Amino acid sequence: MRPFRHVLIVGTGLIGASLGLALRQAKAAATVSGWDRSPQHADEALRRGALDAVRPDLNAEGADLIVLATPVGAMPELLKRVAATAEPEAIVTDVGSVKAPLLVAVAGMQRKPVFVGGHPMAGRAQSGPAAASADLFAGARWVLCPEPGDAGSIAAAARLAALVTTVGATPVLLDAASHDRQVAAVSHLPQVASSALALAGMAALGGDPAGLALAAGGWRDTTRLAASDPEMWRDICLANRPALTAALTHYAACVERFAAAVAAGDGEALLGLFRAAQRTVAAPQSVKEAS
Amino acid sequence: MRPFRHVLIVGTGLIGASLGLALRQAKAAATVSGWDRSPQHADEALRRGALDAVRPDLNAEGADLIVLATPVGAMPELLKRVAATAEPEAIVTDVGSVKAPLLVAVAGMQRKPVFVGGHPMAGRAQSGPAAASADLFAGARWVLCPEPGDAGSIAAAARLAALVTTVGATPVLLDAASHDRQVAAVSHLPQVASSALALAGMAALGGDPAGLALAAGGWRDTTRLAASDPEMWRDICLANRPALTAALTHYAACVERFAAAVAAGDGEALLGLFRAAQRTVAAPQSVKEAS
Repeated sequence: MRPFRHVLIVGTGLIGASLGLALRQAKAAATVSGWDRSPQHADEALRRGALDAVRPDLNAEGADLIVLATPVGAMPELLKRVAATAEPEAIVTDVGSVKAPLLVAVAGMQRKPVFVGGHPMAGRAQSGPAAASADLFAGARWVLCPEPGDAGSIAAAARLAALVTTVGATPVLLDAASHDRQVAAVSHLPQVASSALALAGMAALGGDPAGLALAAGGWRDTTRLAASDPEMWRDICLANRPALTAALTHYAACVERFAAAVAAGDGEALLGLFRAAQRTVAAPQSVKEAS
Repeated sequence: MRPFRHVLIVGTGLIGASLGLALRQAKAAATVSGWDRSPQHADEALRRGALDAVRPDLNAEGADLIVLATPVGAMPELLKRVAATAEPEAIVTDVGSVKAPLLVAVAGMQRKPVFVGGHPMAGRAQSGPAAASADLFAGARWVLCPEPGDAGSIAAAARLAALVTTVGATPVLLDAASHDRQVAAVSHLPQVASSALALAGMAALGGDPAGLALAAGGWRDTTRLAASDPEMWRDICLANRPALTAALTHYAACVERFAAAVAAGDGEALLGLFRAAQRTVAAPQSVKEAS
């Protein structure tokens, strides 16, 4: 009744090790093995009980599910390496924030693996296997992006949906392009807006951190994301370049509309902008009016 | 030993009614009276115990402290009306987010009141006397802006500092221009950035709120301020136009630097920007490196 027999987790950081812990706790696979570029991370994941075994080399033999859980920038190359030793019936998925680069990588391969993009909408500020937790995915949406029209990928998505249910997540099927556009809007754009706000706020203080003495909850909430891992976000932004560029174009235009209204002292325009923004974040049933 | 005998609160909304509750609980004045444009709000403040008496008309007779606690846009006109009936020795202060417009109003008056700008760094999402609470100011900074070189205003600021201490706040003396520049950076700019983000995120979703299904904590935190009162923020933005325009110019430039790096696929530039932003929100002692 288990959806998979042997799950190989490639990258045993926060997400990979949490998945290992959750799968082993749910007894959702007979074996969970892991590999990490950092042997220390793999050993720590093993010690914490996230794995049954560490693979010293990146070799996918014997696994019927391979989960790429590394930073997004490393995934396309690792996908190729994994596919070279994967069993013919093995399914490959990932947990990255952007789907397009892996689809490009798969399309360019001679011997294509059965691939289903995946993205659990879960995380925390800390990273690494030490921060892993078996309940990280409880109640979270887990997006699955089978390749449209590919029967093998669609059947694989159904098995993955069963697997993510065992770790407490809710599977959501979505095409990869819609996924990338939506996360650009609700995740990647807020990250850039938050980092830009931290920089601009400090610049407006003349670079003097003493000015932060008047900062309260508003500043903390809107700049919280600026503390996130810079390397991870560089990779995500580069991987989702077209969709994020489109979102940033919308954002620059909206900021400019506010700035022009403030500079002109145009109270009517400002009120209209603040009201439209308020409707957008109001209860979902009333959001439609705002668009 | 009380710093003031009779405090008149002009505007009995969230801040005004909370101040009345806190002053009466601390027995910091013999009498707390109140006036509001809305008789219902004044009556509700009275019923909740925030006032000893409601003034049916805006008349400052008998008060030795007058606190303007209305929306920022209404304050300059109310200051003039209050000053016309104020006792000669009365002190006038306010609780608004911007100091410049009141200083302009005072400078233009024939018979100038003793004025000290004030700004408690406290609030909550709800408004009106129903949301008031005696502990709203506990632990908060309360900025006081005496007029530089004006001995009467400086002495008045010392008495106000004693008063705000009785309600649990920490007085912070600051010149008005620095106050307005700092709140533009850490409060007004984040509000505009958050509202613009709500609008742009929805635009990037093609106006379809179904795309918000993938939104998580990052979206919620960065767009939370967009739910704030549009009229209040229109008034604040107009009142702090020069400082906010300067902050928005910095912001548009920072957003553009990120957007250019994403569009060009420039990983080095993106990493530098994310790292600089991360240093800005890191522990205060390390912030200086970021500027």
